[in-house]
Amino acid sequence: MNIRAHVPPRRAAEFADDSRVRRVRRALVSPDAALALAETFSLLGDPTRTRILHALSVDELCVSDLAGLLGVSPSAASHQLRLLRDRRLVAVRRQGKRTYYHLQDEHIRTLVDMGLSHAAEDAAAPSRRRRG
Amino acid sequence: MNIRAHVPPRRAAEFADDSRVRRVRRALVSPDAALALAETFSLLGDPTRTRILHALSVDELCVSDLAGLLGVSPSAASHQLRLLRDRRLVAVRRQGKRTYYHLQDEHIRTLVDMGLSHAAEDAAAPSRRRRG
Repeated sequence: MNIRAHVPPRRAAEFADDSRVRRVRRALVSPDAALALAETFSLLGDPTRTRILHALSVDELCVSDLAGLLGVSPSAASHQLRLLRDRRLVAVRRQGKRTYYHLQDEHIRTLVDMGLSHAAEDAAAPSRRRRG
Repeated sequence: MNIRAHVPPRRAAEFADDSRVRRVRRALVSPDAALALAETFSLLGDPTRTRILHALSVDELCVSDLAGLLGVSPSAASHQLRLLRDRRLVAVRRQGKRTYYHLQDEHIRTLVDMGLSHAAEDAAAPSRRRRG
């Protein structure tokens, strides 16, 4: 996938800081790449899925153990795991009759870790927004 | 925020791999932390916002330059920036009459970079799902 955008040039005078804008334009992701990224983040925007990913960042697990840990039904866990597999966020390893799920790669672990670090800092910081 | 969950213990026999489950249970994020994480990812699940964050990962920008780069109105860019500020994903720096936006911290840059790396690999890989 070409992740660089073709952004049509504008007249320099339209920008407050043209050299900065040129630098950003050269690097900016394409709308398609931004959409793919947004779709990945959207899939992560669900608390059951974030708990699954965090659990699998600790160790690989089979569906039934994961379901028991999270307090959801095995079929619910299976459904979420299928969505995560389809987006290549988790992968499977078969051992005998059992199927173990693990994070697809270190990118996903980093995504979860960075997201958690941010959420914890966000919760600890004086908020700009009203909390419910 | 206490990000560790209290997960009620189950009888060992209910789990296929009890020692593994105990290890994951000790580390697992709480439902509240998982929800905060999911809310952060949800906010990132929008292609305009991912483009804004990617642009700001290259350099800080003022609203009008960002809007011009992305081909959106300044008021639309402002609206998205406000949402991102509320969630502490971006921050501002005032210089004279101008306001520059930048990523809140390196966590956010890593989130965007890891997400893009994953999305690019996902697009390049043989897909398990039907693409539209």
